[in-house]
Amino acid sequence: MQGQLIEALRPLIRGEIRVVGASRTDAGVHALGQVASVATREPLAPAIVMGALNARLPRDIRVLAARAVPEGFDARRAARLKRYGYLLATDPAPWPLLRGLAWHAGRPLDARAMTQAVSSLRGKHDFTAFCAAPGRGRDPVCSVRAARVVTRPGRVAILLAADAFLHHMVRNIVGTLVEVGLGRRPPHWVGEILAGRDRRAAGPTAPPHGLYLVRVLYPWSLFPGGRGAGRSGAMVRTEG
Amino acid sequence: MQGQLIEALRPLIRGEIRVVGASRTDAGVHALGQVASVATREPLAPAIVMGALNARLPRDIRVLAARAVPEGFDARRAARLKRYGYLLATDPAPWPLLRGLAWHAGRPLDARAMTQAVSSLRGKHDFTAFCAAPGRGRDPVCSVRAARVVTRPGRVAILLAADAFLHHMVRNIVGTLVEVGLGRRPPHWVGEILAGRDRRAAGPTAPPHGLYLVRVLYPWSLFPGGRGAGRSGAMVRTEG
Repeated sequence: MQGQLIEALRPLIRGEIRVVGASRTDAGVHALGQVASVATREPLAPAIVMGALNARLPRDIRVLAARAVPEGFDARRAARLKRYGYLLATDPAPWPLLRGLAWHAGRPLDARAMTQAVSSLRGKHDFTAFCAAPGRGRDPVCSVRAARVVTRPGRVAILLAADAFLHHMVRNIVGTLVEVGLGRRPPHWVGEILAGRDRRAAGPTAPPHGLYLVRVLYPWSLFPGGRGAGRSGAMVRTEG
Repeated sequence: MQGQLIEALRPLIRGEIRVVGASRTDAGVHALGQVASVATREPLAPAIVMGALNARLPRDIRVLAARAVPEGFDARRAARLKRYGYLLATDPAPWPLLRGLAWHAGRPLDARAMTQAVSSLRGKHDFTAFCAAPGRGRDPVCSVRAARVVTRPGRVAILLAADAFLHHMVRNIVGTLVEVGLGRRPPHWVGEILAGRDRRAAGPTAPPHGLYLVRVLYPWSLFPGGRGAGRSGAMVRTEG
């Protein structure tokens, strides 16, 4: 997405273009509420930036909103909370309309056991056990503010909100929760994996196409003037 | 869909294969709950029919359930109620994930005016004004049991249930309701069009890709033995 934004911004911005995305999403992941910041030399009207980008971006990326931000704003560093959702389909036959949009489990999942299991993730923990590449200098401690399982007929969704997420963290948590949902492991297994901080103990990595970056939240104080305040930056919300 | 079902049934059924779909959906329309009946010479286990069809059908058609039905069952004639939904997106920029799945209106719609307008359609009426090809010997009187407008942020859905629907009837109703939602016409206009029975008076035909055949309902008495009862037919629910 970063490369495509830079290309689309070329006619608007001279010289080097710096785009920072709030979250690095893997291929196949759906970014419903990605946020990116762009530094500009002169102030540019957000509506013009949004219109110009949507006219040039490929159809699977759309800027849903744009606003001016305080100088030095960085979409990744300023983010305080990210919300992710993961969609599982439990119908025996895969629904064509959900192709590429949900992980087709194809059999019932015990949502009550999954709810019990996911509750052990709430709070401040070392999430090394659910990180694909631990120990790369990145702090493995994340504060999980919300961890829920929501069900509908034929569907199970896992919703997670945290101040930060490690590499493949949501997908590794989901793959582990599905083991519980299928009855292969008891609910307390998830808390034990978390405490053990060993990636090899956790379940498999869930496929990317069920994962949605739902929203990125910023501190209210960053935008004192409300919509359109600030000077020399653009905040861009995209979906793809 | 009919042709693809017939092709997929060839290895299972010798001789002529008769498939009847409950509803003829135009290209681009999403059939979430289409129902089709297939006549067989000998009884066939529904699970085997479902498995064989899903192994051979193209990926955008999936049999979600199959059951045996009483002899002579016809999915179209036996249907008592059909439910359709139409999805409109009002966000300024089109969401990539809704591409081909909603009509992108791109501006706010007055859902309250649309709700008022759609209420005039409830009950038994001559729907000639909303029929693309009236007077083809088809009875233009339909009983509309439910007509609702449901809203979510950036979305407006129109839900209609009736014993029968005329050609393009939902799409013509939606195109007319959108005129009301945009403020171009008052809510009572829809009732006047209905009473006038003149297709030229109604609004434009909404595009097919926002339309969903949600469900087809049958009388309870038809399936006295519950799931899997009956002998020489198969009832097939597909989605595509």
